[in-house]
Amino acid sequence: MVACRKCGGPATVRVEYARMCLCEKCFVEFYEKKVRETVLKYRMFEKDDRVAVAVSGGKDSASLLFALRKCFPEVRLSALHINVGIPAYSEECEARVKELAEMIGVELFIYDTKKELGISIPDFSKTIFRDRICSPCGTVKRYLLNKVAWERGFTKVATGHNLDDIAETIFSAYLQGDIAQLVRLKPLAPSTHPKLVAKVKPLWNVTEKENSIYAELNQLPVKKEPCPLSPGARSRERKTIVDFVESRIRGFKHTFVSSHLKRILPVLEKSVSQPSLLECSSCGMPSTQDPCAFCRRIGLLKRA
Amino acid sequence: MVACRKCGGPATVRVEYARMCLCEKCFVEFYEKKVRETVLKYRMFEKDDRVAVAVSGGKDSASLLFALRKCFPEVRLSALHINVGIPAYSEECEARVKELAEMIGVELFIYDTKKELGISIPDFSKTIFRDRICSPCGTVKRYLLNKVAWERGFTKVATGHNLDDIAETIFSAYLQGDIAQLVRLKPLAPSTHPKLVAKVKPLWNVTEKENSIYAELNQLPVKKEPCPLSPGARSRERKTIVDFVESRIRGFKHTFVSSHLKRILPVLEKSVSQPSLLECSSCGMPSTQDPCAFCRRIGLLKRA
Repeated sequence: MVACRKCGGPATVRVEYARMCLCEKCFVEFYEKKVRETVLKYRMFEKDDRVAVAVSGGKDSASLLFALRKCFPEVRLSALHINVGIPAYSEECEARVKELAEMIGVELFIYDTKKELGISIPDFSKTIFRDRICSPCGTVKRYLLNKVAWERGFTKVATGHNLDDIAETIFSAYLQGDIAQLVRLKPLAPSTHPKLVAKVKPLWNVTEKENSIYAELNQLPVKKEPCPLSPGARSRERKTIVDFVESRIRGFKHTFVSSHLKRILPVLEKSVSQPSLLECSSCGMPSTQDPCAFCRRIGLLKRA
Repeated sequence: MVACRKCGGPATVRVEYARMCLCEKCFVEFYEKKVRETVLKYRMFEKDDRVAVAVSGGKDSASLLFALRKCFPEVRLSALHINVGIPAYSEECEARVKELAEMIGVELFIYDTKKELGISIPDFSKTIFRDRICSPCGTVKRYLLNKVAWERGFTKVATGHNLDDIAETIFSAYLQGDIAQLVRLKPLAPSTHPKLVAKVKPLWNVTEKENSIYAELNQLPVKKEPCPLSPGARSRERKTIVDFVESRIRGFKHTFVSSHLKRILPVLEKSVSQPSLLECSSCGMPSTQDPCAFCRRIGLLKRA
C-alpha cells in the first residue's frame, strides 16, 4: 500500500509532476488549495463582483464551478453556457450543465446560437474553415460569453482553461511569434473597455489530469466524449507534444508557464502597447478591427 | 528510383523538413547556397575581416570550414582549435582538425589548455560541477576562442552552431525565462568591447543532419563518436525533445527559430539593454561580472 503524503492513509491518486501520492480527501484539499491560492494571488474577485462561470459540459469547467462555489461561498456566482448547435453533442452538453447547476445550486443562463442567431457551428463547414471549425467556434464562444455577460451585468467571466491549455497556447504563440497572443494571455485579463468584461482563469495552475480526477471524485455530471468536430484539432496535436515534453522534463508545464509569466511577459509588455479598441460598426461591441471577428465570421455564414 | 527535385537524376539524399529528394551534387549546391545566403543576409563578413573558424574535430565545424572556404574564397580564413585535454578523445579531435586544415589548405592555430594553462576539462569532475562538465567546458572554450582570436588580431570568430543547437538553446531559454540568453543569441553578435571579437554563426539555418550529410559527401575527416564526458548532457536530452516536436510539426525548428528572430527578439530587445561590460580584475578580459566566469571556474580548479 502506498501511503498518502499528507495524512499517511491509503493513497489512491498520484500527482506525477510532484511525485506525490494522496488519498482522495487530501487530493481534493490539495486541488482546492491551489485554486484558492490562484484566485487570491491574482486578485481575481473583488467585493462587488458578479461572476459568470463559463460552463461547457466538460470536466474542466465543471470542476471550476464546483471548486469556486466551495472555496468562495461569499462570491456571487452564476453559470453561463453557450449552446453552439452541434447535433447530439451540444444537447448532451447542455443536459450535463443543467444537472451540474442544479447539483451545485447556482443560477444558469443558457444562450442557444440556433434560437438567438439562427446559426450553429457545423454551418462553418460550408465556409473556408471547412474542417478547421475549432477556430470560428472559439471566436463565436469568446464573443458571446463576453456579450451575454456584459448584457446581464456580470463584472467577471471565469473560464476553465487549465495549465495544459495555457502551456499549449504559449508554446504555439512562441512558435508563431504571436506577440499579441503572448501579452493577452494572463490569469486575470482586466476590462479595457466598458463593454469588455474582465476574464479570469482560476485553473491556471492545475493540470487537465487534476481536473479529471477532481470531477470524478466529486461525481460531477460531465460529458466525457470530446467534440465530434475536433478530432484533428491542432490544439490536441500540440497537447500531445506538451505531454511528451512533460514526460522528459518533469514539471515542464509548470516551469514553462511560470517562466513566461514571471520573466518573459513583463519584458514583452514593456514594449508592446495595448491594442486600441474601436466599436464594431455592425454590432457595436469592442474590437481591434471593424467589422469585428465575430461579425466577419457571421458574414461568411450568410454568404455560404 | 526517386528523382532529384533539382536535376531529375537519381536522388540519394532526402531533406525531410522540405519533403525534398536530391542527388549528391544538388544537395551540396543546396547546402552551400543556404550557407552563402545566411552569411550575406546577416552581413557576417566585411572586406577587411580576418576570420577565425572554430573547429572542434566534429562534423559541424568541419562542414563550416569547408563550405566557407568554397563559398567565400576571397575571405581571409584561419582555423582555431582548443584542445581541452580529455584523454584519448581530445587527441583524436586534434588529429582530425589537422587533417582537415591540411586538406582545405588553411592555417591552423591550436591552443592546448594543458600546455598553456596547466588545466584540462576532466579536472572539473573534482569541483561542484562533477558530472555536469559541459557547463564549465562551454565557458572555457567560449572564453579561449575569444581571447586567442583577439590576441592574434582576428576580427570575427565563426562557430559551427547549427539549427538544432539554436532551436534547443532558444527552447531552453524560454523554459528558464532566460532573457539575457534570448537577446544574446544571434546569427551575428557584434563586438561591444575592444577585446570582444564579433561572433558569427553561418550554419544558423542548416540542420545537424544536413551537416552530417555534407561532411560525409565531401569526405571530411571528422571524429564521429560524441564526447565521452557528455552522455547525460542536458542539451542532448533537449535535442531529443526538439526532434520529437519536429517529427510532429514538420519544419518546427525552422519556424520556431525564425519566429523568435523576426518577431519576438525585436520586442525583447526594445526593453532589454545591453549588459554593461567591465574588465575582469584578474585577467583583464571583458565580462559582466568580476572576476569573470572563466577566472571563477579556474579558481575552483585551483581550490580543488
